[in-house]
Amino acid sequence: MTTVGVGMVGHAFMGRAHSQAWRSVGPFFGPPLTPVMTALAGRSAERAGAAAAALGWASVETDWKELLRRDDVQLIDICTPGDGHAEIAVAALDAGKHVLCEKPLANTVAEAEAMAAAAGRARERGIRSMVGFNYRRVPAVTLARRLVADGRIGTVRHIRAQYLQDWLADPQAPFTWRMDREKAGSGALGDIASHIVDTAQFITGHTLTGVSATLETFVPERPVPGGGTAPVTVDDAALFIGRTDRGALASFEATRVATGRKNALRIEVSGSSGALSFDLESLNELWFYDGDEDGATAGFRRIVVTEPDHPYTGRWWPPGHVLGYEHTFTHQMADLLTAIAEGTDPSPSFADGLQIQRVLAAVADSAASRRWVDIEGSD
Amino acid sequence: MTTVGVGMVGHAFMGRAHSQAWRSVGPFFGPPLTPVMTALAGRSAERAGAAAAALGWASVETDWKELLRRDDVQLIDICTPGDGHAEIAVAALDAGKHVLCEKPLANTVAEAEAMAAAAGRARERGIRSMVGFNYRRVPAVTLARRLVADGRIGTVRHIRAQYLQDWLADPQAPFTWRMDREKAGSGALGDIASHIVDTAQFITGHTLTGVSATLETFVPERPVPGGGTAPVTVDDAALFIGRTDRGALASFEATRVATGRKNALRIEVSGSSGALSFDLESLNELWFYDGDEDGATAGFRRIVVTEPDHPYTGRWWPPGHVLGYEHTFTHQMADLLTAIAEGTDPSPSFADGLQIQRVLAAVADSAASRRWVDIEGSD
Amino acid sequence: MTTVGVGMVGHAFMGRAHSQAWRSVGPFFGPPLTPVMTALAGRSAERAGAAAAALGWASVETDWKELLRRDDVQLIDICTPGDGHAEIAVAALDAGKHVLCEKPLANTVAEAEAMAAAAGRARERGIRSMVGFNYRRVPAVTLARRLVADGRIGTVRHIRAQYLQDWLADPQAPFTWRMDREKAGSGALGDIASHIVDTAQFITGHTLTGVSATLETFVPERPVPGGGTAPVTVDDAALFIGRTDRGALASFEATRVATGRKNALRIEVSGSSGALSFDLESLNELWFYDGDEDGATAGFRRIVVTEPDHPYTGRWWPPGHVLGYEHTFTHQMADLLTAIAEGTDPSPSFADGLQIQRVLAAVADSAASRRWVDIEGSD
Amino acid sequence: MTTVGVGMVGHAFMGRAHSQAWRSVGPFFGPPLTPVMTALAGRSAERAGAAAAALGWASVETDWKELLRRDDVQLIDICTPGDGHAEIAVAALDAGKHVLCEKPLANTVAEAEAMAAAAGRARERGIRSMVGFNYRRVPAVTLARRLVADGRIGTVRHIRAQYLQDWLADPQAPFTWRMDREKAGSGALGDIASHIVDTAQFITGHTLTGVSATLETFVPERPVPGGGTAPVTVDDAALFIGRTDRGALASFEATRVATGRKNALRIEVSGSSGALSFDLESLNELWFYDGDEDGATAGFRRIVVTEPDHPYTGRWWPPGHVLGYEHTFTHQMADLLTAIAEGTDPSPSFADGLQIQRVLAAVADSAASRRWVDIEGSD
Repeated sequence: MTTVGVGMVGHAFMGRAHSQAWRSVGPFFGPPLTPVMTALAGRSAERAGAAAAALGWASVETDWKELLRRDDVQLIDICTPGDGHAEIAVAALDAGKHVLCEKPLANTVAEAEAMAAAAGRARERGIRSMVGFNYRRVPAVTLARRLVADGRIGTVRHIRAQYLQDWLADPQAPFTWRMDREKAGSGALGDIASHIVDTAQFITGHTLTGVSATLETFVPERPVPGGGTAPVTVDDAALFIGRTDRGALASFEATRVATGRKNALRIEVSGSSGALSFDLESLNELWFYDGDEDGATAGFRRIVVTEPDHPYTGRWWPPGHVLGYEHTFTHQMADLLTAIAEGTDPSPSFADGLQIQRVLAAVADSAASRRWVDIEGSD
Repeated sequence: MTTVGVGMVGHAFMGRAHSQAWRSVGPFFGPPLTPVMTALAGRSAERAGAAAAALGWASVETDWKELLRRDDVQLIDICTPGDGHAEIAVAALDAGKHVLCEKPLANTVAEAEAMAAAAGRARERGIRSMVGFNYRRVPAVTLARRLVADGRIGTVRHIRAQYLQDWLADPQAPFTWRMDREKAGSGALGDIASHIVDTAQFITGHTLTGVSATLETFVPERPVPGGGTAPVTVDDAALFIGRTDRGALASFEATRVATGRKNALRIEVSGSSGALSFDLESLNELWFYDGDEDGATAGFRRIVVTEPDHPYTGRWWPPGHVLGYEHTFTHQMADLLTAIAEGTDPSPSFADGLQIQRVLAAVADSAASRRWVDIEGSD
Repeated sequence: MTTVGVGMVGHAFMGRAHSQAWRSVGPFFGPPLTPVMTALAGRSAERAGAAAAALGWASVETDWKELLRRDDVQLIDICTPGDGHAEIAVAALDAGKHVLCEKPLANTVAEAEAMAAAAGRARERGIRSMVGFNYRRVPAVTLARRLVADGRIGTVRHIRAQYLQDWLADPQAPFTWRMDREKAGSGALGDIASHIVDTAQFITGHTLTGVSATLETFVPERPVPGGGTAPVTVDDAALFIGRTDRGALASFEATRVATGRKNALRIEVSGSSGALSFDLESLNELWFYDGDEDGATAGFRRIVVTEPDHPYTGRWWPPGHVLGYEHTFTHQMADLLTAIAEGTDPSPSFADGLQIQRVLAAVADSAASRRWVDIEGSD
Repeated sequence: MTTVGVGMVGHAFMGRAHSQAWRSVGPFFGPPLTPVMTALAGRSAERAGAAAAALGWASVETDWKELLRRDDVQLIDICTPGDGHAEIAVAALDAGKHVLCEKPLANTVAEAEAMAAAAGRARERGIRSMVGFNYRRVPAVTLARRLVADGRIGTVRHIRAQYLQDWLADPQAPFTWRMDREKAGSGALGDIASHIVDTAQFITGHTLTGVSATLETFVPERPVPGGGTAPVTVDDAALFIGRTDRGALASFEATRVATGRKNALRIEVSGSSGALSFDLESLNELWFYDGDEDGATAGFRRIVVTEPDHPYTGRWWPPGHVLGYEHTFTHQMADLLTAIAEGTDPSPSFADGLQIQRVLAAVADSAASRRWVDIEGSD
């Protein structure tokens, strides 16, 4: 049994999610490479130590650079805020470590370009990299992509995608790094619009070529825990329309102030002979309309995506037993470990992450200029 | 019992719907003015005669102008394609007849301006006019407006509106006047985007100030019954984002090629302390999220809008007995007859219809120029 | 054009619903016999006169027996409480009038037997009779029957049927004749359990052979408008399980105290290779699971039953335009008029109504004896 | 940090689910006792060894009795078929080991009585026992119980509970021990009806006092892998109605042949002033109707049970991130470990399991006798 030592940087929300996935991937997927939870890096020895004990990491580093020097670490898992991604990822790849990097790939196009370049260099040496757009690996989403690829909805004409959350609807919700442009790059745009752009492109196989957008910050300052307020320097909401390289129209909305919607990543795709609809709040369901059905019995089918014929689900439980949010990360780890073992490139790549970054930049540019903006590199 | 003689122009889909409403408004609403189905105008004496017999009209005219000359007709109900609206409505108003005109008000802003001017002149003489955006009178939609007005969702921040149909998804669906710019003015834009713009503004009380748009014709020519094909000169789909006079972001999609969606006028409104959601395919339901509820029990409520406390419904059946599409027209007639009897202005007015027309024009302009376009008259 | 004069007895809820149907059946269905709303019978001349004026009846009788003597009346429409059904229906049939009788057919099996006998005698003279289980003619319900008959769900194994209302959940809801055994025969049992028994048997083609039941009156007395209280002598809820002649298991619940359910007639049928589900609160939808679909894409389809291929709907509006409660009565009138014109027997017959009555009697018997009770006449 | 050594018997479906829970309970719940996955018992050394390696158990025994002799094992987790429960549980308790036993507690009332007696004896020595009705610990179900207890739906009047699966709808589905009365005790009755009886009683706090039932085996024999067929000696479906000690009516259906329903444990509770509805296929949702709401805005609320105010969920992810089937077991382990540490009795107890067993026996008795059967021990 071959193993791969994992060093994870960061131990907040994403660190907890990745830890559960590293723990679970072995028992359920029996991947060709077995991950070893070798080391956790965090700035504070105390907090990192407590996290490592709770989450099951064997050792702790207070400087992530130490991870790169360790022979027992072959894979770096980056779970920090976006402003740290580029430095860590480039260094890790150049040091010959495989890299899994949380999304969005970076805070700027320039950073993402540097990361994609490093990934290209590393690839020639057999070093793999992947960006963590985990929602691709919701079984219903993977199934959606398969149905489109199989021609079950015909030519895609419409994409309508929304990512609706409400944790900032209340003006008294406190200021965090996610509202600080320096740390986060942007607000709803980078954090959640990036997810729907990736998911939409993943399901359809189309690439966005241009967008027209508007951004808004509804609550311009927020209370700081401890006293006083801080200015919100990112968007609360991003709204844009676009077109794809294969002739579809697309509509996107990402917002953190959609009162009552907790985690509603909703995507609907209309094709010339069928349609698909998904909502992350009902993660185990995919709705599929088959336009080839008889007119009297045609209708959107609620597929409960828990059956042996569905992606990933057969590895977990008998039919009908639903999965949750965290399982998407386990699927991600399983696919990454398989790619490393087989010497293939995992997906989504850093190049994919860079393309998403260009879309985000075009959205910001369009919102500022009030014009349609073509996306660099697409045509 | 005072009566009002109605003369209706046109007897296709809308003529049938209006006829059912004129028949039903008396028994269920007992309005202060009782409508008499006096005369039906249609070009072909034969077809108009058959329609009058089937639909319950007492007489027939082959020239709508004759209706204006009849003393037993006090109200003109215009159910023709859009290219006839302006001429008929202006003449009728100037002849001292009340006018109900189907939506959209006209095919161009210029026509709509002439109609609004005529309505203004007529109003001074106590003559009333109304444009038929019937979906305002879905009980769930009227209730939605009431909840917003009562402050139940706080400040409106997001409007997301879609009108999804699929009758043109099939490239073999035949050419009709609705695909001809000369007759229809535009495609999905005028026919169904007009409805969601009106419904969105009606529910929220906001007015659109600017838009960025794109239009598409996916099937450029269609078979003509009898042989050959004709070019489609209107849009199959209209997609736009916008902003309102009171700071909300809005997203609109109107399409006739959304495979599987039959008549899905969907509108969702997010406010600072609540939210609303509606889908015309489930006409009797309104979803309401009350952000003031306790966190443990907050959730979108499915209100079955059939209760005595709901708009219009108490006039029909006991609680829980659902209404259909046609009832919106009966509600419209009831409100119009009441306004005429009481000497007040019915709503939506021709001025409202003109404002919608300006939004539609801005959408077309933006789609052509690839820029954000401000809407004339709003600020 | 041949006509049939209709005389209606009663003008409360059912009278209003039937009137709307008599008015609408001509314009939308163009039946071979055109109904004429000739006379309305009600005990109070004043109230009957007002109702006739409002609902469109040409004349009034204060004694329903007068209707039987009139030559311009060929069809008697019985909309009275159940205790009047037998006397009126038998007399009308014996007088050579066609009869439409509201459900349940009678308050007792003996009455229903007399009515079925009278219907049998009349039939030999070409006189037709029908009992008004209108929910058979919800398009989704008719479609469900068709799918079962076409073998689309295989052998029926399970029927689960509920009729949930909540208008008596509040102990302060006032006493009416519907809570009086003398007038109504029973409570939820006759009023709404009868509907689900009929609908279940109609969809599946199965006949109940035995039941085990329990009945309950949660609120034993209720306030009388004007002061005081009256004892409730009927059931608030009826719960039973049963078996059918073709080997299926069935579960029924009818209640007027299911808080929050307004008019939820829900029926679900599981077959060996498919399933169906329906809820009257979503009247325009039928859910269908096709077990022959591929495992990866199988799911309950939400069929929006508004398409040209669906029962009845093509006579109303274009695709996607929903119908309401009242339309079921129009469908009923259309089918009745067609049967009379064609000299065939309309359905459901008085014999069908009698069979339902026997099921209701078995339910009451079982609830009293705490035993499984076989249903008379089935085997 | 105090630990408890766990010895698990069995490593099939339930063994895998329990293992994931033992792995996850530490990181997410930080319970006062930390479980150590000490030993796995299975008859085949080879298969048990492979399972232990895959699932993370430190050692293997081929005789479960060895677990009782080990000092490093303080808790026995029984995941075998029902025919082994009584022997193992009684021996373990008598040996001073805490016991978690999968549901249903036993195959017969006699076995369950012996187990409850052993649990009573053990309890006096501070030894704890629990039966694994894991669905009590779906956050939505726990929340439902809390709402009932808080009086949010008033007096419970109706319980309607269904557990619908379809894995035996196909007559070609192969024979397994679950279709063998010797091994499984019963079919849908013990396997899944037990769950809905427990869940219904848990949510409402009511106890069933009597039932009337029918059972059916639709497919009397099934193919045996390898060739030939075997007789099915258990029920495919169990249908019953009942009454509770506090005056509610209840309806239950458990079936393995409800085509299209994968794991639909559905429960709806109607109270005098509110109602609740739940479906395991949508595990993260609870529907709540508050009858005290204003009539115009009352409706069933879809509560997405992922918020900090909800039971258990705050230990996992930020708001809006859904859980799956397996998390119910983790909650179960957390509560069990807490009870052991605090010296309190975990719930559901073996006495609870015995009461469920008596309900199941009454159901079987009623189905055979075609009479209403009172449940032993209730009154």
